[in-house]
Parts: sequence; structure tokens; C-alpha cells
Amino acid sequence: MMNFSLKPIGMLHSPFREATGTPIQSATAKAVEGWVEVFPEFAPGLRDLEGFDRIWLLYWFHLTAPARLLVKPFLDQQERGVFATRSPCRPNSIGLSCVRLIGVDGNRLLIADLDFLDETPLLDIKPYVPAFDCFEARHVGWLEGKATQAVMADSRFELSETKLKQC
Amino acid sequence: MMNFSLKPIGMLHSPFREATGTPIQSATAKAVEGWVEVFPEFAPGLRDLEGFDRIWLLYWFHLTAPARLLVKPFLDQQERGVFATRSPCRPNSIGLSCVRLIGVDGNRLLIADLDFLDETPLLDIKPYVPAFDCFEARHVGWLEGKATQAVMADSRFELSETKLKQC
Repeated sequence: MMNFSLKPIGMLHSPFREATGTPIQSATAKAVEGWVEVFPEFAPGLRDLEGFDRIWLLYWFHLTAPARLLVKPFLDQQERGVFATRSPCRPNSIGLSCVRLIGVDGNRLLIADLDFLDETPLLDIKPYVPAFDCFEARHVGWLEGKATQAVMADSRFELSETKLKQC
Repeated sequence: MMNFSLKPIGMLHSPFREATGTPIQSATAKAVEGWVEVFPEFAPGLRDLEGFDRIWLLYWFHLTAPARLLVKPFLDQQERGVFATRSPCRPNSIGLSCVRLIGVDGNRLLIADLDFLDETPLLDIKPYVPAFDCFEARHVGWLEGKATQAVMADSRFELSETKLKQC
């Protein structure tokens, strides 16, 4: 099967410059503010977005270590299959965050509840619609009883200085 | 900014072979069953997934028409900015569906509530966790009062026979 090519449509601006100390989920990152810069050629696609309280951001984990199929997630001490986690070290490094949309100013979106690093390349924006995105799910596997902890990331999935030099 | 390359990690198998008649959201596709084929080299990453009731599938809209920044969505009569819609005709053609996970058998996942076409290339699987993914969002813009309609797609975003031949 063929590969696909992605081009960034913008850049995410956040107060977090390294993984250590960054919230691991937007749900636990309340009030952290930042902004989305949408490159001017894509700005016409933002029409009508202002009416939504929340948006999905899809982005590229640009500073993550190479993919692993088994990872020890932030919320656990055991190795888990990467597809049963939200770890950034994935075969396709796509991140997904639901953030609060505070305002739209031309090609800039003011947002809150951020859980990503500064200068993250933006791939897509979709409106958050509870009727499409909120589902009952009683069983959350190994995350049972852990998912509501306000845990911050450490450096375990970060591209190390040494690895950066090798790239 | 550089481009990124995606490689499919598997393929989605669905009863829908063309856009016309396919549910436009998994929330309105209850009981439609299909399966996920994860390519064997990625199967170790599925460990621990079985414990989750629902999963996110990220996939490539492989039969969609070229990107447009303004689209007339299935649920409306007016043109809207593509980023304020879930239309497949996006600058980066990434689809996002939350499906029910019925069972795991080796590298095959039996799933329900499908809203995508057969043979869609799979990019990523993430666990669905209400604590991470369910948010209150009172304002849903132009979708106000429309989001719960069980609408089926038509061919408006489909790659036409003519265009397929040109590809």
C-alpha cells in the first residue's frame, strides 16, 4: 500500500517547550492558553469555526522519539501496546487534542486547555461536536481508575539531545 | 516547514463501497459491523486494547475529491469553511471515527458503528477514554440542532469516475 504525504497547515503556539511538565491530556490542562497560527493560504477554511466552543486539533508529534510498539505510559508502570495508549511514539506520529476555542482573529485562533509543545506542526482542525464525539464507554482497560489523574509528562518519549544530533 | 510521510498500518473493512448511503458519523451508524486488519508487523502494538469498549480510528480518506477550503456539508445548504466541518475534502485527508470494539482476534479487530468506506487505509488506533475525549460544548455553530440527524452521505465529496481515471 502506498504512503501518504502530509503538509502542515499551520503551527501551534504553547507555553511548553519540552515534554517534562507538559500536561498529558487537554482534560487535565485547564486554563493553559496558547494560539493556533493557520498559514494564510488555508485561512478561508476557518469560516464558521467561531461558533464552536471546542475544536479538535490534529498535529504532528515533532519532538518525539522513534516509534515503539510497546511503551510504558505516563499513567502506568507496565509496558502496554502503543495502540492501547496515547503515547506520542507511534508508527504515524499524529496527535489529537480537544481544546477550548476562545476566539478567532483572522488566521489566529486563541485556545485554552493545551497539552502539546510549542511549534508543533498543525495538520487539521475539526469542530468538536458532542453528538459525534461523546460516547458511553464503561471499560477503559488498563486506564481504569487512572484516566482522571492530572499527570504531567516527563522526558520518556522525548527525542534526546543525542538522538536529535543523529537525525 | 517540511512535509511528513504516513505509512498505512492496516486496512478498514466495511460494508460500504461508495460514499452514497454511508453514514456520515459513527454516532448515527449504530450496529453497522466491519473489521480492522492490522498489518502483522504492527500487531504487537495491539496488546491491552481488548479492555476498551471504544477506540478512535484515524484513517486516510482514499476516495475523496481534492481538498476544498469551502464545502457544502451533508447537514447544510450553505458553504462552510472546511475546518468547521467534518467533510473528507480536507488539505490533509485524515478521517477520525470512534467505533465500538467488539473483539480482538490476533491482528483483526471486530468493530461496530462504522462510517467509512471499505478498504480505507488505517493510520492509527487510539483508545477512547471519556475522561480525555468527552467535553461539554454548548455551542456547535452551524451544526446547532442538526448534529443528531441520522443523515447518510451522497456522492458530493466522492472522487468521480472521471477524476479517478485522471489520477
